[in-house]
Amino acid sequence: MVRVPREEDFARLDREDPLASFRERFRIAEGTIYLDGNSLGALPAATTESLLRTIEREWGGDLIRSWNLHGWIDLAERIAARLAPLLGANAGEVAICDSISVNLFKLLGAAHRLRPGRTVVIARRDEFPTDLYVVEGMCGLPGTALELRLVADEVELEAALDRRTLLVLWGHVDYRTGRLFDLAALARKAHAQGAFLLADLAHSAGVMPLHLDRWRVDFAVGCGYKFLNGGPGAPAFLYVSERHLPELVQPISGWFGHARPFAFETRYRPAPGIRRFLSGTPSILALRALACGVELAGAADLELVRAKSERLTGLFIELVERELAPFGFQLASPRCPAERGSQVSFRHRDGYPIMQALISRGVVGDFRAPDILRFGFAPLYNRYREVSRAVAIWRGIMEEQAWQRPEYHRPARVT
Amino acid sequence: MVRVPREEDFARLDREDPLASFRERFRIAEGTIYLDGNSLGALPAATTESLLRTIEREWGGDLIRSWNLHGWIDLAERIAARLAPLLGANAGEVAICDSISVNLFKLLGAAHRLRPGRTVVIARRDEFPTDLYVVEGMCGLPGTALELRLVADEVELEAALDRRTLLVLWGHVDYRTGRLFDLAALARKAHAQGAFLLADLAHSAGVMPLHLDRWRVDFAVGCGYKFLNGGPGAPAFLYVSERHLPELVQPISGWFGHARPFAFETRYRPAPGIRRFLSGTPSILALRALACGVELAGAADLELVRAKSERLTGLFIELVERELAPFGFQLASPRCPAERGSQVSFRHRDGYPIMQALISRGVVGDFRAPDILRFGFAPLYNRYREVSRAVAIWRGIMEEQAWQRPEYHRPARVT
Repeated sequence: MVRVPREEDFARLDREDPLASFRERFRIAEGTIYLDGNSLGALPAATTESLLRTIEREWGGDLIRSWNLHGWIDLAERIAARLAPLLGANAGEVAICDSISVNLFKLLGAAHRLRPGRTVVIARRDEFPTDLYVVEGMCGLPGTALELRLVADEVELEAALDRRTLLVLWGHVDYRTGRLFDLAALARKAHAQGAFLLADLAHSAGVMPLHLDRWRVDFAVGCGYKFLNGGPGAPAFLYVSERHLPELVQPISGWFGHARPFAFETRYRPAPGIRRFLSGTPSILALRALACGVELAGAADLELVRAKSERLTGLFIELVERELAPFGFQLASPRCPAERGSQVSFRHRDGYPIMQALISRGVVGDFRAPDILRFGFAPLYNRYREVSRAVAIWRGIMEEQAWQRPEYHRPARVT
Repeated sequence: MVRVPREEDFARLDREDPLASFRERFRIAEGTIYLDGNSLGALPAATTESLLRTIEREWGGDLIRSWNLHGWIDLAERIAARLAPLLGANAGEVAICDSISVNLFKLLGAAHRLRPGRTVVIARRDEFPTDLYVVEGMCGLPGTALELRLVADEVELEAALDRRTLLVLWGHVDYRTGRLFDLAALARKAHAQGAFLLADLAHSAGVMPLHLDRWRVDFAVGCGYKFLNGGPGAPAFLYVSERHLPELVQPISGWFGHARPFAFETRYRPAPGIRRFLSGTPSILALRALACGVELAGAADLELVRAKSERLTGLFIELVERELAPFGFQLASPRCPAERGSQVSFRHRDGYPIMQALISRGVVGDFRAPDILRFGFAPLYNRYREVSRAVAIWRGIMEEQAWQRPEYHRPARVT
């Protein structure tokens, strides 16, 4: 019989954790067990200072000259170069810009323009909705022959793929269940029919090693505000395999994507490299915050991060199932660590008020309709002891039936 | 004969300036005469504190809960409500989001979808290039019948307009010369042929009273980083007249524009109001900085701002033409104040090194290829004495031929 972990086991795991020192490089309030890294990562300790300098010395002091003096003009490029190895990509394949939604639109438009004869985009029905909405939006433009086809899973995908398929749009990790998909296998399936694979890395970038080049993923998008700790609404990123880059022209062709933005030419000429995927002027404040987060993620060994992530999520499942057995929580995430992102979800029909009660006692996860309690584990700052402490608090809430208090049933605008 | 203004006149104008107290609400380095508000506005004094609170207390302390607790979710909406009166619009007609380029794309797409039978976009050949590039990008999408037609001026516009015209895209102020166009007259011209007017307000929002509703402008875009003092690359805004709002659906249909973003529905349903023009998650840090800038602009009487702007630019022209007469500068801006934005441009074939010399002595304007020295006046912080001081420094540079030094001839990445 497998031995159930005890309190002292968690303390020992923390002592032996090769990533333990990263915790001090974040600012996390005393008393908060933050298990929501997959909604918004914690604040890196270096961010405040960096933003202060950017605001006061650069914007306030050197004003417009800062575009040259303080490298604002290629700040996004420098962050992309730091991020690229985390994605298994070359620096020339990654751009930092806009939001996931806008970047998806650019990639869809570029792919469509390259292969106008292919008109079907296939995506998973349970994909994070903004991905589907953006495809819908492009399909609604007059004259376009594009259409969106939804499938349930990889089996249906295989049946749906044919020579009309332009691309397969697929999230690396399911945002509700945390299920991790095999991007290399998806790329092979898509390529077998001559289609592209566009991966959404919102829930995987920064928390596990990625190998976009080796997996032969064609395009990808991801956000900066989850496991990259870039702050609320941080700029997003996009990836374009160098196999396709020279032939791709994206539709939101703003001046920052021009070959010579400051020549003020009348006609658009895309920049030679990945910079052609930029559009308008980027927020320098937002980029500076993202740079601090990417710096931290880049300083860690992602193999160690992934190993700790599997262990944190595995222990959490084990403990919840042991300690909360009488209360009817159903595991919604894959039990096999290799099939799981850095997130654990449980289903419960009272999931909403239970999550509110947890949050009010300092265990911060989030709720996803209709019934999912979602906990994201960020190995750079979450401790093993937080796993056992979180489950103990959760058990207390269930035993006292604390979640039945009316204040936990009030709807929030953001869940 | 008109009396030429003297040193004591400028000091008196400052003493009598009803906007004089605004200067203290900005942080401008000692020794800098900042005449580049139309590239990047100065730093409001309140911004640092606001960002510090947002980073440390909100992101760092309350983390993901801040979307509800600190109103992150409708922060953009609150800024839009504060900005709307500056545009002569209702709060429900203005959204804060993305960049000018991205917002132009959304508005073009929405207009195109509403009237697919009209296929021509008319714009001025000398328009700020990103505006033209974005139209070009949309025209390049497969299946679209859209085309861009360039004209020299309003006369050519009138000849080009017909029943195939979808919209006229026109900047309120020419970015090189500072020429101010009559948006009401342009709207009448466009409407006479059943076309829309889409105005670019990058160089006018915040520095003069605007009356988009009264002028019957249909759509507009503008940026937050010039006269709204929102910081480098601040989020942009867009305006949609309430006459058109209910029928418009924009193509970059991300989750923040959905009727119920947190219901995670599979199909896109646009939000009932202007919120349907949002796409992805906005940067909260960038929005907080913009809020401080818009707050300041909103606290001033824009009629007084415009009166001071006309006077500052008028005095600058007068003084340059008197003091620098031997050096061959040619006024590129309209002489009539009513036809001029808050900017004065002079042409000179050595404009680039002369501007570098000016900047190195603390007079910060900018250079626009091929030969334009551009000076933007921000009545909330520029003083009348800065006009005479700037011209005196400029005269010194010309007399000493200081601009001939090699260091002023080195090209910069950003001009």
